[in-house]
Amino acid sequence: MTSPDSPPKALSHPLPAGMRDLLPEETWRRRALARKVLDHIALHGYRLVTPPIFELAEVLERGLGTLDPSDVLRFVEPESGEVAALRPDMTPQIARMVATRLGREPWPIRLCYEGTIVRRRQGRARRHRQVPQAGVELYGAPSPEGDLEVLRLAASSLRAAGLAHFVVDLGHASIARSLLDPLPAPLAAEVSDALAHKDDARIRALLTGAPAPLARALEALPDLHGGGPGDAPAAKVFARARPLFAGTGAAVALDELEAMWTAAHTVDEALGASLRLDLGEVRGFAYYTGAIFHLLAEGPGEPIGAGGRYDALLARFDAPMPAVGFALYLDAVTWALESAGQRDAPPPSVLVALGEASTRVATALRLRGLAAAVHPAEQALAYARAWHFTHLVEASVGGLRVVRVGDGDGDERDALGIEALCRGVVGGA
Amino acid sequence: MTSPDSPPKALSHPLPAGMRDLLPEETWRRRALARKVLDHIALHGYRLVTPPIFELAEVLERGLGTLDPSDVLRFVEPESGEVAALRPDMTPQIARMVATRLGREPWPIRLCYEGTIVRRRQGRARRHRQVPQAGVELYGAPSPEGDLEVLRLAASSLRAAGLAHFVVDLGHASIARSLLDPLPAPLAAEVSDALAHKDDARIRALLTGAPAPLARALEALPDLHGGGPGDAPAAKVFARARPLFAGTGAAVALDELEAMWTAAHTVDEALGASLRLDLGEVRGFAYYTGAIFHLLAEGPGEPIGAGGRYDALLARFDAPMPAVGFALYLDAVTWALESAGQRDAPPPSVLVALGEASTRVATALRLRGLAAAVHPAEQALAYARAWHFTHLVEASVGGLRVVRVGDGDGDERDALGIEALCRGVVGGA
Repeated sequence: MTSPDSPPKALSHPLPAGMRDLLPEETWRRRALARKVLDHIALHGYRLVTPPIFELAEVLERGLGTLDPSDVLRFVEPESGEVAALRPDMTPQIARMVATRLGREPWPIRLCYEGTIVRRRQGRARRHRQVPQAGVELYGAPSPEGDLEVLRLAASSLRAAGLAHFVVDLGHASIARSLLDPLPAPLAAEVSDALAHKDDARIRALLTGAPAPLARALEALPDLHGGGPGDAPAAKVFARARPLFAGTGAAVALDELEAMWTAAHTVDEALGASLRLDLGEVRGFAYYTGAIFHLLAEGPGEPIGAGGRYDALLARFDAPMPAVGFALYLDAVTWALESAGQRDAPPPSVLVALGEASTRVATALRLRGLAAAVHPAEQALAYARAWHFTHLVEASVGGLRVVRVGDGDGDERDALGIEALCRGVVGGA
Repeated sequence: MTSPDSPPKALSHPLPAGMRDLLPEETWRRRALARKVLDHIALHGYRLVTPPIFELAEVLERGLGTLDPSDVLRFVEPESGEVAALRPDMTPQIARMVATRLGREPWPIRLCYEGTIVRRRQGRARRHRQVPQAGVELYGAPSPEGDLEVLRLAASSLRAAGLAHFVVDLGHASIARSLLDPLPAPLAAEVSDALAHKDDARIRALLTGAPAPLARALEALPDLHGGGPGDAPAAKVFARARPLFAGTGAAVALDELEAMWTAAHTVDEALGASLRLDLGEVRGFAYYTGAIFHLLAEGPGEPIGAGGRYDALLARFDAPMPAVGFALYLDAVTWALESAGQRDAPPPSVLVALGEASTRVATALRLRGLAAAVHPAEQALAYARAWHFTHLVEASVGGLRVVRVGDGDGDERDALGIEALCRGVVGGA
C-alpha cells in the first residue's frame, strides 16, 4: 500500500488503493507533456472539449456494454437516486456529447480531450488506478482516410512529445472477432483470453472440438505478425493469412488492413517506419469495429497509447456516424521518455536572500518571466537546495552574488542574465 | 434538467444532475484562464501538485469535520471495501499530502493546484455541481506575513487573468466564532445561518434570551463593514466594533485584523484599493482560524474565489504548522471577465480547401504555429463557419485567395502573413 521509504504518517493517512499523489516535479513533467501533446493536436484542427468528471452508469454502459461492477467505481447520487460511475474510458462520454450537442455540425468532427480515467490494473494486482490521458476523436471520417489521419496524428504527437523510437502495432478488430463469432460464447471468451496472452498451448487445447478451418486460423493468429526490422515481412504475413481466412469475415478485414498498411507507408514515411502488423491483436474495449492499434515503447512494459475505429458506437447514442480515435496514456509516455533519456528539467527559478532590495529584485525577475521567491539570508542556500531552486541571489556588503544551485552546469552560469538584471535593480556594486 | 433549446437526444442520454459538458470554445477559455493564473502563481515560487481524483472519506472528514452524507458523493471501493468520496474541497487533500510526503522540507512550503471539486450548490436548488478551481497553499508562514503574501497573490492573480475590477472582502473567522461560542450549539448554528444571510430581524429574534453584551455585538455584525468608496471608513468600523467586542475573543481577532488591514494598505496599493472590511463574514468551511476573505466581482452573483488562514488543519494530520491559502473558482472568474467585456478570442485557425498543394500548405501553416485542417473545396466555407475557423485558404485556377471567416476585422486581413506564407508554398501566382 505504501512504499518502504514512505514516512510512517502515510500509514495513518492512507490514500485510496491504487491512487497516488503527484509531487511538484512529477506534476510539472505531466503538465509539460500534456501541453506539448495537446498543442500539437490542436495544430491539426482538433478542438478541446471537457466532459464531466463522472457520468451516469447507464450512459457508459450504452457505450461499453454491461460493465463488470467490480471494474467500475459507482455511486448513487443522493439527490436524484441515479447510479453514476467514474469513467473507465472517455470515448463513450465524448460520443454522448457529440450525439446530444454537436450532432448537427458538418463532418468531420475533430475533437480532443485530456482527463483522468479510473481503470482496473491489468495483470495480477487487479486494483483500480487512475490513468491520465490525452486523446483524439475523429467523427464522420470513413476508412481508410480517417484511420490514416488518426494513425499519423498519434505518431506525430509522440514525436512532438520528444519520443523518437516507438512502435505502432496495427491490427483489425474484425479478424479475431469474425473467427471467434461461430464458436459458443463461453468458448469464444476463453479463446479470446488465450489469444490476448498469446498462449499457443491453451488455444490449441481449447479448440480441439472446433471446425478444422476455424481452429487452424485461430491457432495461427499469435504468429501472424511482422513488418518490423528483423521480423517477417508484412507481405509474407498477409500471404500466409489469406488462405487461412478464406470464406470467413476475417478475409474482408484482412483486405482493409492490407490497403491501410500500404497507404500508410505511401503517405507517411515516418509513420511507416514505426508500423508493425499484428493480426492476433485482441486487446481493448469491445466497441472497436475496424483498425485497432497499440503504441509501444521501451520502458513502461505496457502500451503508451491505443486507438482504432468504432463505427457502431455513435449509433448507440442515436447519431450513427463513422468514428476513429486514440488516447495516449500520459504516465506511460513519461516513463518511455525517461527510459529514452528525455527528462526535461523544470524552468529556472530564483531564490532571493532577504535584504534591502530583495522585493524589487524578485519583482524584476518575475517581470522577466522567471519564478522568484524571497527567503531569510541565513537559511537561503539550504532552502534553495531543498526546493530545487536553480539560482540563489545574495546581496551582501561585498556586493551581489548569483549562485547556481544543485547540479548546475558551471559555464552557463549567467546565460539567463540574472546577475545583470539584479545589478540593474540594486544599482552597480 | 436540460435547457429549452437542447436537442431532444439530450433527454435520452442525460448527464448526471448538476454536471455539464464544456464545448470547444468554453474549454479553450477555461484552459487559457487556468494557464494565465497558474503561470502567474508559479512566478511567485509556488509549485504545482496533483492530489488523486478521490480520497478516503475518513481523510476528508479529518480535515472538514463530519460530512453531511448528502453533501458529499461517496462510494465503496469494491476491492478494499473502503469508503471513498469525491472531494468537496482540495485543501484537506493537500494538507494530507504535505503531512505525509513533504512534512520534512523547510518552511515555508509553497504549493498550488488545479482541479475540480464536487460541491452542493448554495441556495434553493441544492444539487451537486462541479467547480473547477485553481488555488494556492502556503504552509509554515505565520500571520500576518503569510496572510499578506496570499492576499496579494490572490489579487495579482485576478489582475493577471485580465480582471481589473474586483473586491477582496476581508474578515476574521474568530470574530463571529468567539461571539457564537458561548451560545448553546443549536442556537449558535441558527444565528450563524442568519448572519450568513444578513437577516437582521431573525438575528434579533433568535437572541432575545441571550446575554445583552453578546446579543448587542452579534446584532451589530451585519452592519460592521466598510472601507470602500462611499462606504463607512474602515477606521470607523474598527472604532465602532472595539467597545462591542470588549472582553470577548473577538477583541483579539479585531486587533489582528486591524493590523493586517493597515499593513495591506502600506505594502500594496493595488491590493489596498480592492480591500473591503466585513466583520460579519461567516461563510465558508469550518477550518478557518484567522483572516478569511472572499473575492467578488460584477457578474456571477457569487464569489469568484475565497481564502483564509487555517492554523489548526495540519495538526489534524499530525503535522502542526500554520497555513493560509485561497482558491479561485474558474467558472465564476470567467463569468466576471465576460461581464467586464474581457472575452479572449481563441487563436487563429486556417481551413485549407482541398487542392493540389493543400497538404503542403497545411503543413507550412502548422510549422508557423497556426492550426490548420484540409477540407473539400465545395463545402469549405460552410465548414469553416460552422467550426469557427478564422481563415479559409482557397487555391483555384485564378490563383490563391485567403478569406477571413466570421466577424473578421477586414483591415487586419493578412496581419498573420497567411497569404504570403501560402504563396511561398504554392509558388507565385
